[in-house]
Amino acid sequence: MPKQARSEITYRRLLAVAEEAFARHGYENVSVAQICAQAGVTKGAFYHHFPSKQALFLALIHAWVDRLQSQLVSALENATDMSATLKAMTETAARALQDAEGKLPLFLAFWHRAARDPKVWEAAVAPFHEFEALIAAYLRRASEAGHLRVSDPETAARALVAQAVGVLLEAALLPDAADRATTLRQSIEWLLRGITASSSGESYSPDLP
Amino acid sequence: MPKQARSEITYRRLLAVAEEAFARHGYENVSVAQICAQAGVTKGAFYHHFPSKQALFLALIHAWVDRLQSQLVSALENATDMSATLKAMTETAARALQDAEGKLPLFLAFWHRAARDPKVWEAAVAPFHEFEALIAAYLRRASEAGHLRVSDPETAARALVAQAVGVLLEAALLPDAADRATTLRQSIEWLLRGITASSSGESYSPDLP
Repeated sequence: MPKQARSEITYRRLLAVAEEAFARHGYENVSVAQICAQAGVTKGAFYHHFPSKQALFLALIHAWVDRLQSQLVSALENATDMSATLKAMTETAARALQDAEGKLPLFLAFWHRAARDPKVWEAAVAPFHEFEALIAAYLRRASEAGHLRVSDPETAARALVAQAVGVLLEAALLPDAADRATTLRQSIEWLLRGITASSSGESYSPDLP
Repeated sequence: MPKQARSEITYRRLLAVAEEAFARHGYENVSVAQICAQAGVTKGAFYHHFPSKQALFLALIHAWVDRLQSQLVSALENATDMSATLKAMTETAARALQDAEGKLPLFLAFWHRAARDPKVWEAAVAPFHEFEALIAAYLRRASEAGHLRVSDPETAARALVAQAVGVLLEAALLPDAADRATTLRQSIEWLLRGITASSSGESYSPDLP
């Protein structure tokens, strides 16, 4: 096997082994030595790929976010009306939930560390901003093209991302709840409906403070 | 000062000191000895009130959840129509956000520990269920009384709680974002509007998979 292909296999094996170990035992309780032993890889090979355990941790998060973003971008590309937008967003959210299966304790570990570690914090915050920017840009385009009515795309994007994140967090805490996929799809549908209904001026005027 | 009043003051001082220390340095990095020194309290007095550091941690979370629940219950008591419901929910959510100011890293520490500690897990999960049950019961009553149209109060309640939690989590990660109160209020308004609009059958039929 060529050297580069072997190196690629080692890289992927380290990611897979670490992902499972972090999710099962917690980031703090897993050492580089344990990851190497489990993956059948020398420490030298480990440090060839990752300068530190944290670098591997960040690589895991980046890979997850990248997959999800590509999925959302390609789903929205073909969405021109309300129904297609809804489908693109709910399918991406459902995919995120499925993809996160078993990894959710890892996100909690990640967010927890983010409060204390500037590099992890940047990696934790960047995806929020990227997803929000992506969705806001889409809503603005769709609104300008007359496909959807959205008066405040930035706040709408933040609300949609927060909704998905809230369901994901609850799923992390309640891994046995069977209906989280339904909650996720239904809540995004309601939210998007509320966003577009309120902008089209079809309804009541709430008496807000 | 009577003994009981002194004891009550000690109890409250320990909670206040620990809350600030946990939020600033992280739960793991703060010891009982440090809390005692900072509060000017003996270890004997500490263990008179709390069997462990974890017990104090849980007391902090319970106090926060209790305050928020009373606020929501009393706000919903007087809410009979859509506009009043919206006001009750958005005001409670805004209060939660305000009340959580500076404590948000503590929630992350809490959720993170929940994945590994059954007692913390129970304390972390119970508030989700209590808020959801409270809101679902209210939506059902309001729906039966004809004040609101909500066809699936359980899923609606889960969606509303997830929305608030998602914004809170984002606020924990982005403490400087100025517009999170707006996002929270606006997103709950959109969601509630979507929930009631979809149940009254006023709009489009999405082509969901």
